[in-house]
Amino acid sequence: MVNQINRVAIVGGTHGNEFTGAYLVQKFTKFPELITRRSFETVTLLANPQAFAATRRYVDKDLNRCFLRQDLENPNLNSYEELQAKSIQNSLAANGDKQADFILDLHSTTSNMGLTIILVNTHPFNLKLAAYLSEINPLVKVYCCSFKSVEENPFVNSLCELGFAIEVGPIAQGVLKAKLFQQTEELIHTILDYIERFNQGEILATNETLTLYHHLSVVDYPKQQDGTIYAMIHPELQDKDYQALNPEDPMFLTFENQTIVYQGESTVWPIFINEAAYYEKGIAMAFTKKEQLKI
Amino acid sequence: MVNQINRVAIVGGTHGNEFTGAYLVQKFTKFPELITRRSFETVTLLANPQAFAATRRYVDKDLNRCFLRQDLENPNLNSYEELQAKSIQNSLAANGDKQADFILDLHSTTSNMGLTIILVNTHPFNLKLAAYLSEINPLVKVYCCSFKSVEENPFVNSLCELGFAIEVGPIAQGVLKAKLFQQTEELIHTILDYIERFNQGEILATNETLTLYHHLSVVDYPKQQDGTIYAMIHPELQDKDYQALNPEDPMFLTFENQTIVYQGESTVWPIFINEAAYYEKGIAMAFTKKEQLKI
Repeated sequence: MVNQINRVAIVGGTHGNEFTGAYLVQKFTKFPELITRRSFETVTLLANPQAFAATRRYVDKDLNRCFLRQDLENPNLNSYEELQAKSIQNSLAANGDKQADFILDLHSTTSNMGLTIILVNTHPFNLKLAAYLSEINPLVKVYCCSFKSVEENPFVNSLCELGFAIEVGPIAQGVLKAKLFQQTEELIHTILDYIERFNQGEILATNETLTLYHHLSVVDYPKQQDGTIYAMIHPELQDKDYQALNPEDPMFLTFENQTIVYQGESTVWPIFINEAAYYEKGIAMAFTKKEQLKI
Repeated sequence: MVNQINRVAIVGGTHGNEFTGAYLVQKFTKFPELITRRSFETVTLLANPQAFAATRRYVDKDLNRCFLRQDLENPNLNSYEELQAKSIQNSLAANGDKQADFILDLHSTTSNMGLTIILVNTHPFNLKLAAYLSEINPLVKVYCCSFKSVEENPFVNSLCELGFAIEVGPIAQGVLKAKLFQQTEELIHTILDYIERFNQGEILATNETLTLYHHLSVVDYPKQQDGTIYAMIHPELQDKDYQALNPEDPMFLTFENQTIVYQGESTVWPIFINEAAYYEKGIAMAFTKKEQLKI
């Protein structure tokens, strides 16, 4: 049961080529009054400065996969991002100088995911805040990718129970789009205002149901035996994140113009369709199940 | 005066994270019959395989800036891309095994440039082909960025007088979009068919005028003294490539929401608006002048 949130951390540039979050964090660092509220402190963190300087997702390793508890405790892991993860843990968690009660981690995607909230747990505070945000802004979608235990969560958001990642798109890596920058900034202000009113004991009216897209599985591109892909996202599926994909709907188009259909037996709601950074991870999209959750 | 084109080279992956061209070249290499025509040979080249494998524009240096004559002749230049440029010159020019009369270099951009033909000279054959392509497909635009001499042209297309680059967009780096893949492939087939009919002595009817966007200058992002940018492309200019920008029209939006307008005295037609790879080059867009050329 949460009574009071004393410190909020806004993290950007966890992936160095996702400019929206990195530049927003730089803006907030320069103008801290924008994120100041009476009842709590707000701190900022540019999580992967070397990758940001190089306009790359990471230098050695994906930083947002470095927060498994066992990896943070393993003294033999010494790559740039592994050390950076330990430093971030020391700062934002573990009684660090910026110990946070709520962490907002800012990401962007080449997929058409609007303003997506990525929940890594179903803490009632997170659910209520997500419901509030999706109620007042139709661009907001809520994706739930929860882990069996916090030890198994490799994301920055494993460092504290409250908070989530925000994933905005579509936007190419290494660019700023003013409209998405403004929409993301506005969402952050709404979140900070919500926390302020929560701390003051105000209950914000929300719908009692939340539309949640619950993670089911990931789907790879069709690949040849040598590991090279032989099909692309089908034009009819491109940019259709959060829309129903039914059995026999087109999914991929081979380089030779053959359509590959979805062969599952039940409807799914794909997201992260054609995310650039996921080609190397073998992920063409993630399947989710759309659910109405009573909260 | 050109009488006969004997060998066409289709080059892709000059920038390793521009997937459309790289995957098309791989497709054509696998199915050479697709690009075979009776009167000439067609060869393919994946220009920067190491950068493609790493999903990066380049490993050490932008390959498409390595073709200055003096650099190709300089034995002291030994970075991966500098050596690759020399190897490509040896193959496609200089009486190499794939000596080409016509080079098509396939690129993609995060800017909304449709199917852009980038002319690096105004050879009558190139102009007529460009006029033909833009006449039959309204997505085709013709950008002319010609150099005083071939020695000063740092692009792959400096290796022979005939041919041009194709720049397709908008598309993020490191992804394939099926629709753009198909449109680019169709354009390539039209070009090969045109060359085939030219070799057979057929004159293809074209308009006698060509709409050409002639390069004027490049414009950097507004920057602070320390070199960091403080403004983004204005939402009203984003995706407006090839549209008129008039004096006092919005150009940039600062992170503090101030609009910066275009202060020039005459109308320009910006292109390469918000191209990801040009942030590091200090280019927010290129200004062009729209011209009707009698050919």
